[in-house]
This record gives sequence, C-alpha cells and structure tokens, in this order.
Amino acid sequence: MNNKAFFKLSYGLYVVSSSCDGKDSACIANTFVQVTSEPARVCITLNKNNYTTSLIENSCVYNVGVLLDDIDMDVIRRFGFQSGKDVNKFDGIDYEVDCQNIKQITEGIAASFSVKVISMTDVGTHIMFVGDVIDCKVINEGEVLTYANYHNKKNGTTPKNASSYQADTSKHGWRCTVCGFILEADELPEDFICPVCKQPSSVFEKI
Amino acid sequence: MNNKAFFKLSYGLYVVSSSCDGKDSACIANTFVQVTSEPARVCITLNKNNYTTSLIENSCVYNVGVLLDDIDMDVIRRFGFQSGKDVNKFDGIDYEVDCQNIKQITEGIAASFSVKVISMTDVGTHIMFVGDVIDCKVINEGEVLTYANYHNKKNGTTPKNASSYQADTSKHGWRCTVCGFILEADELPEDFICPVCKQPSSVFEKI
Repeated sequence: MNNKAFFKLSYGLYVVSSSCDGKDSACIANTFVQVTSEPARVCITLNKNNYTTSLIENSCVYNVGVLLDDIDMDVIRRFGFQSGKDVNKFDGIDYEVDCQNIKQITEGIAASFSVKVISMTDVGTHIMFVGDVIDCKVINEGEVLTYANYHNKKNGTTPKNASSYQADTSKHGWRCTVCGFILEADELPEDFICPVCKQPSSVFEKI
Repeated sequence: MNNKAFFKLSYGLYVVSSSCDGKDSACIANTFVQVTSEPARVCITLNKNNYTTSLIENSCVYNVGVLLDDIDMDVIRRFGFQSGKDVNKFDGIDYEVDCQNIKQITEGIAASFSVKVISMTDVGTHIMFVGDVIDCKVINEGEVLTYANYHNKKNGTTPKNASSYQADTSKHGWRCTVCGFILEADELPEDFICPVCKQPSSVFEKI
C-alpha cells in the first residue's frame, strides 16, 4: 500500500455553502462530481465535523461555487481554515443569494450550482450528499483551480479535517501537537492560531 | 440553467476494471474520488449500461488505474468505445492481476487502486460504488490526464453512455440518429461503426 498513489487523483476545488434557520456557512471541498446527466445530478462528500455539513443535513440544500485558478488565497483561508461555528464567513465579502436562498460568493468563481439533496450516505468520517441541480450558472470566465495547482502553485495548507484528501507523510513545516494539523510554511507566525483546534503557536513543533 | 457550468468541473480519467466468474472487463470513467482518509475509502460512479458495472455489482470488487497524460488514444478507444459484452478488452494488451484477481493495464497509468465495495447507491442511470482501498501502487511517473486535457488536447469523443459528463449542446461533428452518440470530427469514416449502438456510418447526420 503506497499512499502516494492518492496524489495521482485529479480534483477541482469548490466553495460549498448552505443555509438553515437563518444561519449561513460555507467550506472548501475537492470532492464535487456530476453523477448523472439526465437528470443533472451531482454529489459532494463532506467531513462530519464541518459546520456546513450540519447545515446541509438539516436544510437538504446546498450551493457549490467552482473556484478560479487566480482565486485570492484569503478567500480559501476564509472558507477553509476557520469554522462557521465561530465566525460568519460571509461577513465583509461580496455574495449573492441563489434560488434556494443560499449565499455564494461572486468573485473568484467560474460557475455555481444550486443543489437539492435527494440522498445522504454515511461513509464514516464523511457524508455523501447526492442531489439534483435546480439551477446552474457560469459566473466568470477563466481557468479553474485544480487541487494539484492549489498545492503546487499556491503552496496551500490543508487543515486536518477540511478535506478528504489523503494525509501527506512527506510534508514539512509546523505540526500542531494538539490536533495534528500541519502548516506548510518556513516560518510560524507568532500570532498563529491553529485553524482546527484553535491552539496558539506555542503548541506547534517543527517537522 | 446554463449547462456550460458543468464544463467548469475538474476530473481525472480512469480505467475501471472488474472480474466475476472468470469474465473480465474494464471501462473509462471520470468520477473516481477519495471520500475518506481513515480508512482510505473511495467512490466510483458508473453507468448501469456498462458491462463492467454488472461485473462489479456481482463481484463487489474493482480496480482503478489512473491514466497518464501521454496515454495512447487507442487505449481509451479500447476500453471506452466498445462494450465488454462484445469483446475481451484485455486481449492483446499488457496487464497485471491485482491482489483481488482483477486485471489492470500496466502501461499508460500512473497508479492503481484495488477496491472492495462496501456500499452501492442507485442514483438513476448510474450506480455509485463506495469501497475500501485494499491496496494501491504508484506504477509510472509522469503527469496524469485530466478530463479537460482529454477534451482539449486529444480531441476526444464521448460515447453517450460511457460517461456521466453533461452532454455538450455546442458540439459539432456527426450524430448517430439511432442512439444520439456524437462523433466530434470533421470527417465521418465510411466504415465507422457507432461505438454505442453498433449502427453503420449511414445512420449518422452532420451537426
């Protein structure tokens, strides 16, 4: 079993949002696929620990925005590296509301999909949400961001629970000794807060 | 609803094989994703009309090979554009047999995954096969083939039933008037046989 095989898989990168009882949130995921053409049916797989996952479980609706290659890394940090339990991720950023009343960003995405869930499958740490596309739009032209480019070009970091991608044992940088989150960076900022478990930089060790 | 939004999704391209009661087959698919890391769990979504799909339904095992960017188009035609009901797709091509006794090609793939199915979900025209990775290997180095590159660089054609990708209403070329398959090409070869319904070139119309 050579886990490096998992790095050969190709994905896009997406902002997945939902809304329930007046609460909005969104997260970053790489597992969005179209599963049938007729009807237009899709699937997203999300970690159970994500706040967005609980919103979708309750509302049975979600929106997926397809990230563009030139996306500002701050947008990925905003949606991927903090929890919607703690902050309102749409505060201070441009968004529109789709036909199912779900917020989605308008800058930095190529397209958006409004999805109504038809089935949920528990696959262990994650839930797969199969749904029908109620509406979809092309928002901006430009090359889309692939997961490979995200890692290669953006030197991106992956919170332990934010993605279903296999953990990379060859990573270097700083590891949170509390939750295992790895920051891939040469320097650890003094005021750095672990995006997963909220511990300060003092609990991090160099790897 | 602008179906061009579906062209903004990113995928890899894969050879999915299975074996049951001494019968082997494989098909081409773009919907392979890792769904959890612990355990290493994956999902492939396949059209019910594929012969490979019926083999997986009965054997509950499959192997996925990750296609390389420099793959010979003949390999894609071999596995994607004919049915395993009619021919033995592994005849005359190099392959190895994995730990679950499933054939997989050895040239033109970056990695392979041996998967044991843990759940099947009927999503209409397709079935989603979630499974645990029993073994995985890196086979060859090199850039992997993305679905975008397959379409852009290889001028690939998509049999109507071979993929879950949304039909492209902007396609030009030749349409089979029997099953709707579209050959994206300037010229229609006289001896062309529809890869989906096996009709001759005379039933095709220019679009």
